[in-house]
Amino acid sequence: MKQKVRFGMVGGGTGAFIGNVHRMAAALDGELELVCGAFSSDPEKSRTSGAILGLPENRVYPDFETMIRTEKALPEAERMQALSIVTPNHVHFAPAKLALENGFHVICDKPLAFNLEEAEILEKLVDSTGLVFALTHNYTGYPMVKQARRMIREGEIGSIRKVVVEYPQGWLSTFLEESGQKQAAWRTDPSKSGIAGAMGDIGTHAENLAEYITGLRITALCADISIFVPGRKLDDDGNVLLRFNNGAKGILHASQIAAGEENNLNIRVYGEKGGLEWRQMEPNTLLVKWLDQATQVYRTGVGNLYPETLAHFRIPAGHPEGYLEAFANIYRNFAICVRAHQDGKTPDPVFADFPSVSDGVRGMRFIERVIESGKSDQKWLTF
Amino acid sequence: MKQKVRFGMVGGGTGAFIGNVHRMAAALDGELELVCGAFSSDPEKSRTSGAILGLPENRVYPDFETMIRTEKALPEAERMQALSIVTPNHVHFAPAKLALENGFHVICDKPLAFNLEEAEILEKLVDSTGLVFALTHNYTGYPMVKQARRMIREGEIGSIRKVVVEYPQGWLSTFLEESGQKQAAWRTDPSKSGIAGAMGDIGTHAENLAEYITGLRITALCADISIFVPGRKLDDDGNVLLRFNNGAKGILHASQIAAGEENNLNIRVYGEKGGLEWRQMEPNTLLVKWLDQATQVYRTGVGNLYPETLAHFRIPAGHPEGYLEAFANIYRNFAICVRAHQDGKTPDPVFADFPSVSDGVRGMRFIERVIESGKSDQKWLTF
Amino acid sequence: MKQKVRFGMVGGGTGAFIGNVHRMAAALDGELELVCGAFSSDPEKSRTSGAILGLPENRVYPDFETMIRTEKALPEAERMQALSIVTPNHVHFAPAKLALENGFHVICDKPLAFNLEEAEILEKLVDSTGLVFALTHNYTGYPMVKQARRMIREGEIGSIRKVVVEYPQGWLSTFLEESGQKQAAWRTDPSKSGIAGAMGDIGTHAENLAEYITGLRITALCADISIFVPGRKLDDDGNVLLRFNNGAKGILHASQIAAGEENNLNIRVYGEKGGLEWRQMEPNTLLVKWLDQATQVYRTGVGNLYPETLAHFRIPAGHPEGYLEAFANIYRNFAICVRAHQDGKTPDPVFADFPSVSDGVRGMRFIERVIESGKSDQKWLTF
Amino acid sequence: MKQKVRFGMVGGGTGAFIGNVHRMAAALDGELELVCGAFSSDPEKSRTSGAILGLPENRVYPDFETMIRTEKALPEAERMQALSIVTPNHVHFAPAKLALENGFHVICDKPLAFNLEEAEILEKLVDSTGLVFALTHNYTGYPMVKQARRMIREGEIGSIRKVVVEYPQGWLSTFLEESGQKQAAWRTDPSKSGIAGAMGDIGTHAENLAEYITGLRITALCADISIFVPGRKLDDDGNVLLRFNNGAKGILHASQIAAGEENNLNIRVYGEKGGLEWRQMEPNTLLVKWLDQATQVYRTGVGNLYPETLAHFRIPAGHPEGYLEAFANIYRNFAICVRAHQDGKTPDPVFADFPSVSDGVRGMRFIERVIESGKSDQKWLTF
Repeated sequence: MKQKVRFGMVGGGTGAFIGNVHRMAAALDGELELVCGAFSSDPEKSRTSGAILGLPENRVYPDFETMIRTEKALPEAERMQALSIVTPNHVHFAPAKLALENGFHVICDKPLAFNLEEAEILEKLVDSTGLVFALTHNYTGYPMVKQARRMIREGEIGSIRKVVVEYPQGWLSTFLEESGQKQAAWRTDPSKSGIAGAMGDIGTHAENLAEYITGLRITALCADISIFVPGRKLDDDGNVLLRFNNGAKGILHASQIAAGEENNLNIRVYGEKGGLEWRQMEPNTLLVKWLDQATQVYRTGVGNLYPETLAHFRIPAGHPEGYLEAFANIYRNFAICVRAHQDGKTPDPVFADFPSVSDGVRGMRFIERVIESGKSDQKWLTF
Repeated sequence: MKQKVRFGMVGGGTGAFIGNVHRMAAALDGELELVCGAFSSDPEKSRTSGAILGLPENRVYPDFETMIRTEKALPEAERMQALSIVTPNHVHFAPAKLALENGFHVICDKPLAFNLEEAEILEKLVDSTGLVFALTHNYTGYPMVKQARRMIREGEIGSIRKVVVEYPQGWLSTFLEESGQKQAAWRTDPSKSGIAGAMGDIGTHAENLAEYITGLRITALCADISIFVPGRKLDDDGNVLLRFNNGAKGILHASQIAAGEENNLNIRVYGEKGGLEWRQMEPNTLLVKWLDQATQVYRTGVGNLYPETLAHFRIPAGHPEGYLEAFANIYRNFAICVRAHQDGKTPDPVFADFPSVSDGVRGMRFIERVIESGKSDQKWLTF
Repeated sequence: MKQKVRFGMVGGGTGAFIGNVHRMAAALDGELELVCGAFSSDPEKSRTSGAILGLPENRVYPDFETMIRTEKALPEAERMQALSIVTPNHVHFAPAKLALENGFHVICDKPLAFNLEEAEILEKLVDSTGLVFALTHNYTGYPMVKQARRMIREGEIGSIRKVVVEYPQGWLSTFLEESGQKQAAWRTDPSKSGIAGAMGDIGTHAENLAEYITGLRITALCADISIFVPGRKLDDDGNVLLRFNNGAKGILHASQIAAGEENNLNIRVYGEKGGLEWRQMEPNTLLVKWLDQATQVYRTGVGNLYPETLAHFRIPAGHPEGYLEAFANIYRNFAICVRAHQDGKTPDPVFADFPSVSDGVRGMRFIERVIESGKSDQKWLTF
Repeated sequence: MKQKVRFGMVGGGTGAFIGNVHRMAAALDGELELVCGAFSSDPEKSRTSGAILGLPENRVYPDFETMIRTEKALPEAERMQALSIVTPNHVHFAPAKLALENGFHVICDKPLAFNLEEAEILEKLVDSTGLVFALTHNYTGYPMVKQARRMIREGEIGSIRKVVVEYPQGWLSTFLEESGQKQAAWRTDPSKSGIAGAMGDIGTHAENLAEYITGLRITALCADISIFVPGRKLDDDGNVLLRFNNGAKGILHASQIAAGEENNLNIRVYGEKGGLEWRQMEPNTLLVKWLDQATQVYRTGVGNLYPETLAHFRIPAGHPEGYLEAFANIYRNFAICVRAHQDGKTPDPVFADFPSVSDGVRGMRFIERVIESGKSDQKWLTF
């Protein structure tokens, strides 16, 4: 009888957007089981959330320290094996560190930490403990992102010349944080979000996606970073020129004041022989463009796809899968790796594929450099 | 502490397409828990499937009769409360009947039964027992389908004049059943599928969607039903003229030989004032067309949507939800109604909304009439 | 020095929609020159229109009889060579007949005539005179329609099984003719339009397109024809089942009460190996779908297109051409054939390709049969 | 009787892409008449081209100097009134200057000249002569571009914050100029094209479109300019950060090595209240996005459009117009202004709207600054 991977959660009290996303993602494939949680910094709220989630009272904790300590004392077959961290940025580091130090695997929301220093400490800790660490840059979990990555690695579109990655949203076009809206409030508060607003919240997704799909590294950037909404404390828009380690050039722009845009993450990659285009809002489609032939519409479930593509969708062609399924792919892969770790085995590389702590460090460095560039008169900052 | 609704499953052994879909749909929102199953007519296969699913051995049964009898004997707090039926058509009736007779709620894949007679027996049984019965015409679970339905009910596009509903697929363009492909084999086998192939498998989805969205009833039909692939025993294509109870006219066509089509269910409804268009393959979008104004692109999460729309998606605008989420809506609503039934309460009508046994009877009648019309020289058959 | 083909026009006075379309189409490629006209049944209006068009007064006529007689008397190098007929349906026959009888080539708007009888007389006259006759079923002038036709003829998608052709418009959703709107008034007036409304005005375009692209012949039809707008005298909607001479099945529907639709002519053709989809509102794209490969997006100007496709667009990839360019293709081809006729040569078959008088007869027969079927209880009428 | 505006042409011999485009654009609306030309620097080729175009031999000239001198000597009612210049960049200045000095109106392909100095001389000459001068930045001729411009001017989307304008093409992904392909050869040759390749050929279109639609002025830019194809002499790709005079930020990127892209000019403009999106490859559509309402799909011919939008399309909704029609709008408006000039009248501002010599100067300045920025370590160059 297969055992589900038991995990606990920090943050994600009832009503939280991302906490619920993590729970649905963890539940979808039946590979994990939520066994405990410290769902809020308010112990009463944590208790209520636990009850609604159907957890026994004794597995609902007032804070993450208590949870980690108490769980560690439970019998091995019962205690949580992994910790899911779904708090705002300033509460990533402490629970992640404590979990790792106590032998728990970690799956953490992005960006990795509040600043680069914290991120680098976590990276070292993951290295030294050998524990499994996943960062939920969930957009890399989409099957057609896997397909794009592999096609590029196989040289199907030739050497990469140009990358355009965009992440426009419009939901912060007004001074929403003033109204107390929870999602807006912490994301625009430097004491919780860190030095970046939009560039940290979504710019890092774009940066991560561009490097993941192309397999290239950004080596220099030149940014124009703005705060458009009066009274706002952190950037709500950024336009960035990129240079990559193979000589490719690029553009990254992210915005939360692109009025009328929903969550329009998209990427176009142009090589010597062809181009790829993927858009998160219709994620089951990958456009493959050629110099002198008809554009092809690659779709999940149709034709000859790479093994890692096939491994990341669940239902036949034409049955759309979305954001939660991509998110669930991260959780499913994390669970497979946790189980392999437990069994002392090497996981199948098709599944051992999710954003790592090092990707998280890279994201934090991106935040630092892009914000610095925004303030600088120097054209190019190395990255 | 909230209790999940405990359910068992008939069919859906490992590798089955639709069984896995049901399990993921049931898991997504954390409202149900799979506690037992008779996953295959082969007891050994049932056992293996149960083990893979992490079920205790004593809750994995060799057949549905044993399961229903044994579960009934368990303490109330432990035994399954509902049965999910995910077998081919010819094995819907018997487990559904036995479950209802033994006090279990039922959630059953479509079409309801092997023939109309069976369907009508089930309908009476649901009426007499008062148990909750859901039929997984899952496409009605999409939020934008709810929105379309409500907009029409509110008269936003005026009295309906024309309905065009299509369900083209291409996967049976070749004689796939000959290869032994499991999904193709039973669907094209009259002893398992019933009198209809494509019209039963997907034509009923189209019929159900058209009536659900418009709130109208089909009153007459005129069909041209074909078998295109040599050797095939059941229809693989059908074109149908429709007439509705308010005088509206319509077209329904469904095909499994529309080469190159994935799962392109779509509907357009035209009223006196405007038109609606919804396509399953991009389900988060609803086009609303007007006589003399710009077409509007309604999207989940954007603008003023009706309460029943809001109740059927989970994440903010631009984060696509798909087939599994719509399917999960049926399960979630079913669970809410089971719980309400348990508590002797009337469920919130926003959630008490899923295809019923009567919709299933209607679907079986559609199958009978449309196949009859295909063979008839009479232009219109009443429905 | 190349001579332009000189043509006169019947109808198309200032303000007329289709007259202006014909003039722009004739002008675009510099192959024809408008030299005279009888632009209105009102001589004064004809004069004004001629002046606005920059024609000399003596080449603007009070009626088509005078024009044909007078032009015939002019020196050969000066007189018109062809007549363009852009009047409502009831004034197609008389000028076409007179023109042919007097040795003028004819290019005529569709449908060919007021009724089938007239159409057959014209067909005989074209046969006996050997003059060039083009019918402006302009949608066959699009380059991607040519591409689709040739791909099917070459067997690229295999033997055809199913055809779905649609022509929804919404502009007659209200009782527009009551307001005196000119386009609506004559099209809904049986004394000017003939026995059909929507089925004649746009249904024939759909019928013509389906037969042109597939190379098949409709052999039987079963129609449901409606008048939805109270007070209207002719059909504003029709749904038709089709059967083709090779055993393929089809659906044709056309509507002028599909509220919110613009001019959404489209066709999908499914063969044993693949499918084609073309939509008039984005005419430079042809989707080519395959059983087990990625859908291809064929585009004008990209990749290996057939010679007849290449011959029907003017500018490189990504520079959209539209309705007028397709219409101009008919005029350009007509001019080439008129010139070849003059020179006693056989025109290049790539250009000798436009709807003929026989297509027009076929369209008139379609109108008669589809209206008859709409009134009949018999399921199938042969065609 | 209305007189057509008589014009001559410099360049555009048979087989030339843009010469033919200009001729079709001039012909479409029947407002202009080509009466003479110096179609090639090779007098023999000029003669042949003239003959094919049906011009009398004595109006076909061996060079533009001869044409301008000879035409000037013709009677006023006969001689050309305007000169159309469709040569490569290095042959814009001389004929434009000579034409203006001799009292001829000019319509000239873009960019205005070979360098900024030439451009400024022409600007002064237009000012001093008062003659009509149009520059064929044809993309501003699209009706939905007019609509976008007016909506912004009316404040419908609020104060502008962000502009993203893209012009990706892929046709120069290979070293095409080596093959002698004519279009590639001169565009990549610094002696004919000037200091810029892609940035001059298409980057200026993007710059012009952004300023035209927004009504804003670019005040600073920061560019990364590349040559990707080995052996190429001029830029084939450029990424540019923009700052506008109202504080808005922007991105402009243009490429001729974006493999698989056709001619994908597009622009998105975000204001405080909403956003606009227009794409040249489907030009009859304008997306209008709102903070909290459904996106609207504005279409030519549908709903309440502004007068200048209505004045720039010809046929009802759903009949696509394209590149040539937009180009024809420039010619039609030019003709109206030439006629008004002749008559000493002020033209209707709805029509007196086409890119001017000053827009051309601005384009040349953009070329100079963007190329300079590409070579500079300084982050921002003022513009």
